[in-house]
Amino acid sequence: MVKNEKILLAHGSGGKLMHDLVSQIFLKKFHNPILAKLDDMAMFKLGEANLAFTTDTYVVNPLFFNGGDIGRLAICGTVNDLAVSGAMPKYISAAFVIEEGFPLSDLEKILDSMVKAAEEAGVIVVTGDTKVVEKGGADKLFINTAGVGIIPEGINISGSNALVGDKVILSGSIGDHGIAVISQREGLEFKTQIKSDCAPLNHLIAEMLQVTRAIRCLRDPTRGGLASTLNEFVTQSNVGIFIEEQKVPIKEEVLGACEMLGYDPFHVANEGKLVAIVDPKDADEVIRVMQRNKYGKGAQIIGEVIPNPRGKVIIKTAVGATRILDMLVGEQLPRIC
Amino acid sequence: MVKNEKILLAHGSGGKLMHDLVSQIFLKKFHNPILAKLDDMAMFKLGEANLAFTTDTYVVNPLFFNGGDIGRLAICGTVNDLAVSGAMPKYISAAFVIEEGFPLSDLEKILDSMVKAAEEAGVIVVTGDTKVVEKGGADKLFINTAGVGIIPEGINISGSNALVGDKVILSGSIGDHGIAVISQREGLEFKTQIKSDCAPLNHLIAEMLQVTRAIRCLRDPTRGGLASTLNEFVTQSNVGIFIEEQKVPIKEEVLGACEMLGYDPFHVANEGKLVAIVDPKDADEVIRVMQRNKYGKGAQIIGEVIPNPRGKVIIKTAVGATRILDMLVGEQLPRIC
Repeated sequence: MVKNEKILLAHGSGGKLMHDLVSQIFLKKFHNPILAKLDDMAMFKLGEANLAFTTDTYVVNPLFFNGGDIGRLAICGTVNDLAVSGAMPKYISAAFVIEEGFPLSDLEKILDSMVKAAEEAGVIVVTGDTKVVEKGGADKLFINTAGVGIIPEGINISGSNALVGDKVILSGSIGDHGIAVISQREGLEFKTQIKSDCAPLNHLIAEMLQVTRAIRCLRDPTRGGLASTLNEFVTQSNVGIFIEEQKVPIKEEVLGACEMLGYDPFHVANEGKLVAIVDPKDADEVIRVMQRNKYGKGAQIIGEVIPNPRGKVIIKTAVGATRILDMLVGEQLPRIC
Repeated sequence: MVKNEKILLAHGSGGKLMHDLVSQIFLKKFHNPILAKLDDMAMFKLGEANLAFTTDTYVVNPLFFNGGDIGRLAICGTVNDLAVSGAMPKYISAAFVIEEGFPLSDLEKILDSMVKAAEEAGVIVVTGDTKVVEKGGADKLFINTAGVGIIPEGINISGSNALVGDKVILSGSIGDHGIAVISQREGLEFKTQIKSDCAPLNHLIAEMLQVTRAIRCLRDPTRGGLASTLNEFVTQSNVGIFIEEQKVPIKEEVLGACEMLGYDPFHVANEGKLVAIVDPKDADEVIRVMQRNKYGKGAQIIGEVIPNPRGKVIIKTAVGATRILDMLVGEQLPRIC
């Protein structure tokens, strides 16, 4: 509940407190049917075009991490938020808040990284903004990217579309981004070789949509991890989801780091993975196509949509027990994206 | 020049260093014809729609000031950046970076203010993002808004369209926003009754476009003030501009505050004013229509476009001398918007 009088770190964690803040404060103030859908992007018609529109500010710390940096993250994150609506991402805005004294050479490295990621995704940065705040007014650099994409006719993907019997597909191993960032963050005493999975998923998604337009739900499990995304789906679609833990790939090093830090890998952020809920008749072909793409190599069916218990994610553990997989409560990894 | 190895406050001031940073770093990295136009928004066709797209992050300090707050600013600023392209602003994104410990009641006040400004402008907030950073990681609250609007057929407004003989119209008094904010900022020992002029100008602009589609250039003189906007026009259009200082309305209190602080009011930010360059045959009718709108009451012709000196703004002072009106060099008012 957002009864607290002050904003807590957990209000930005992607977990329960953030969902409460969004639904109890933001949605009440800005009440309109587009925002109320609570997808990662807005969809609307403008002129004759079906558009998707999204925004994210990136505050990741450190700015450079194994497998990426804030620049790559800022492009990929927004490209992915558009792509999971079925949109073809087209145009990106980039707005920088820079702390006075920030090295220009680091800014250039980050811009190079944005350019490279934008080229890979096939989007262009068309408008921007730069603000500089005094030393101590912001921690180094924050980047906001917003994006506009075009949704082809006949596509209707939303977190609220899951049907009982649908298959749940995950594109690869979970937790890589979160553990890569946290392991590199100043002050932590361990270091892994884990690389962030940060990647643009729009081409992978376009290939999936070539197989079938009947992709019901699609989302990239970022803050709050796979658990949050699955919980969002069951809430929005008013169904249950059953997951087999042993089908969810988690790298040994990620598991080890999670054990050391007391994290549940299902709550750790990803930046280059997707979860899709698809018609069971299409699932195998979708998997086959995904596995041919470098960002979908590890794709597999991890579970299915069930009628009950509504609004819950049930996970069958490796030893055969079942438990409820909750959304993250409290904070876990601040400034992970 | 951006030879400095570190980012300075002046890189965000709207003046020369910021223009150098944009043209020498950002434009070189993200080179594409849409960004290269250097208007305050991007314009492109998507599907069958002519769209405008813009972004701004607001880092104003203090968050609440006479005549507005960061919420009103975040809506009006982005609405205005769209409207000055001739677009009808439609959809807005809102992304918040909040410092841990920020009072929820202040956040609610700011959201109320955003809702009110959005209603006045006729836009809706359709997508958003919330990040929370640890105490000291950001100064209270930053808001990014991006916006999408639709440009009606037949409109072609750009900073590069000014023609010799065109009239320069200003919608009202200058410097109000900058002086309102700075006078309220902690640590300053004077206080004026000046209110920020922060307002959505899209309805005023729509009324102007009813008179004539031949509005060549249109911009809201925010950071860097009227001087920066006029200098942008002469550079983009490769013409000169001649301004009569005594026709530019400046409130007594703003003048007094500027004298005390050593500011040139032509460099002080506005958030509810516009400069238009129009065909001389339409100028009087445009002025007449503007003066009927509460945000255009003080509209008048302040000068005209001249052939030489190209790339320069010449101002005739009250005593009849002429001087070059330069773009702001160095920083003046950090965190003014």
